[in-house]
Amino acid sequence: MDVGTLVADARRGRPRAVARLITLVENAAAAPGGDERLREVMAAFATATGPEGGRGPYGARVIGLTGSPGVGKSTSTGVLIRAFRRRGRRVGVLAVDPSSPFTGGALLGDRVRMQEHATDPEVFIRSMASRGHLGGLAWATPQALRVLDAAGCDVILVETVGVGQAEVDVARLADTTVVLLAPGMGDGIQAAKAGILEVADVFVVNKADRDGAQALVRELRNTVAPLRGPWRPPIVSTVASKGEGADDLIAALDKHTAYLDESGELRRRRLARARDEIETIALARLRARFAAEGRERRLDRLAERLVAAETDPYTAADELLADLG
Amino acid sequence: MDVGTLVADARRGRPRAVARLITLVENAAAAPGGDERLREVMAAFATATGPEGGRGPYGARVIGLTGSPGVGKSTSTGVLIRAFRRRGRRVGVLAVDPSSPFTGGALLGDRVRMQEHATDPEVFIRSMASRGHLGGLAWATPQALRVLDAAGCDVILVETVGVGQAEVDVARLADTTVVLLAPGMGDGIQAAKAGILEVADVFVVNKADRDGAQALVRELRNTVAPLRGPWRPPIVSTVASKGEGADDLIAALDKHTAYLDESGELRRRRLARARDEIETIALARLRARFAAEGRERRLDRLAERLVAAETDPYTAADELLADLG
Repeated sequence: MDVGTLVADARRGRPRAVARLITLVENAAAAPGGDERLREVMAAFATATGPEGGRGPYGARVIGLTGSPGVGKSTSTGVLIRAFRRRGRRVGVLAVDPSSPFTGGALLGDRVRMQEHATDPEVFIRSMASRGHLGGLAWATPQALRVLDAAGCDVILVETVGVGQAEVDVARLADTTVVLLAPGMGDGIQAAKAGILEVADVFVVNKADRDGAQALVRELRNTVAPLRGPWRPPIVSTVASKGEGADDLIAALDKHTAYLDESGELRRRRLARARDEIETIALARLRARFAAEGRERRLDRLAERLVAAETDPYTAADELLADLG
Repeated sequence: MDVGTLVADARRGRPRAVARLITLVENAAAAPGGDERLREVMAAFATATGPEGGRGPYGARVIGLTGSPGVGKSTSTGVLIRAFRRRGRRVGVLAVDPSSPFTGGALLGDRVRMQEHATDPEVFIRSMASRGHLGGLAWATPQALRVLDAAGCDVILVETVGVGQAEVDVARLADTTVVLLAPGMGDGIQAAKAGILEVADVFVVNKADRDGAQALVRELRNTVAPLRGPWRPPIVSTVASKGEGADDLIAALDKHTAYLDESGELRRRRLARARDEIETIALARLRARFAAEGRERRLDRLAERLVAAETDPYTAADELLADLG
């Protein structure tokens, strides 16, 4: 299928076209910057005006969900899908699994819990693997968001596994970042350590019917209390597996969306996101040039000399760059 | 203090010089590639022959420890420090905390558990923050390892918080990667999902005196069983807080070190690490060029056009690159 047809079909919200485009993104992420076909797709999306017959481009609201394994991210994503569907919204889900760098495969695991939406044409769910390339995910995810936006998704939920850098990366991609915690996961002060406080727009204490939930809420409240600035992250208690707290969570998300609009913060975040995206693609293209032709072997030789302590990493890097021409 | 003296002092194992050099690395990580002083330091280390009067360069054995928050990484690191000190080894510890991108500060938290080694001149412990730069940590950690290596550390323990990309990054840095799990953390199949199986050289089931530890060991054993290849990761049970299992862990680590030497895998890993390091520095230097002078504003303008859907990210990236000259 040619790119024009694929893009037109995606803008009509045809799932198969959307799936194929995200696969294109994913495959290209293995060697970012090298795929001319994807380049063509992205150029087509930019000049097209968002989804066919719908709102303009970049109208999708991007909500990131992050937290340690086992806090209930996928279940909470399911809760949000249902809530937004009840409002008649078209929903995209991007489950970003930091997959193995060595096999390229992503185990889907609890993704099965989302099966109930498998036949809903207004829900696009996609698992994305990083394919192990350093920075591959940072590069691929914004492109996948662009595909889902063009497909007319009103809301895109980005679910990441992880604590730490993954959260920071989600925060850079999302308009609103939800950080999930659960009692008894050793998440309390450790979570603060990982710097999640600064990236959270909304905190969710999930599994709120378990021991220690109140203590965790209190701990979070004490940590959030001294925060200055126009937005203090609310703390929402949920039992996602029973759908409890869903309305509170939606209300907190709506409030944050309103704040983003009124304060001008939405524009600031999207500009920062665009900067990151452009820079990441530019660096990926340079990387692709490193990998091209004889340069791969040149890098091998430089690495051998570095291991033999015959050079230092800076000098080796300069030699690699000098080669770029 | 001039670079020559600083490097000479570090090679004599003087803690203050080591600390200052790692601070230099850390500060430079905020704007990788831009620090000419660090460049001088690294060049000096490469031509010098490792620690003064000691073994050659790059002789330090690098052991990565990773796992979710709360599994007991810091406590286990403490156990390993004691074990290696009993053998008379000089030990370096790099605690890589994915800190906030917004404040630049790292909360040290449980680092206090390592206070007992604070006055041991043969133990260097350092917490490192990422300073929020995309790729800053990937760039800075190998440089900090180089400093500790030059300071004559025989073993360097790299402790990371996180599941997912952080583990992958540790695996790329370490000769041996230890993945820690604990019962009741929702770590079982979720852990496999995050791709840790492929990065683990040794599994540790910590808190082995708790309910569910046996089940976790069994689950891991079943997962590891089908693995082919010359090295099947051993599974070690520990209660790090009581020092239980320490000998088993050390034995497993030694066995892996012997395997690395005999199989030629050590050289392969170090070559891969050197390649990554050179490439990362080269990209960081390019990034620094983007940020220089008028280009920062150029990127701002490109981002504005991207948000306004007047361009696509690829075309914008090309315009940025064309500017590099």
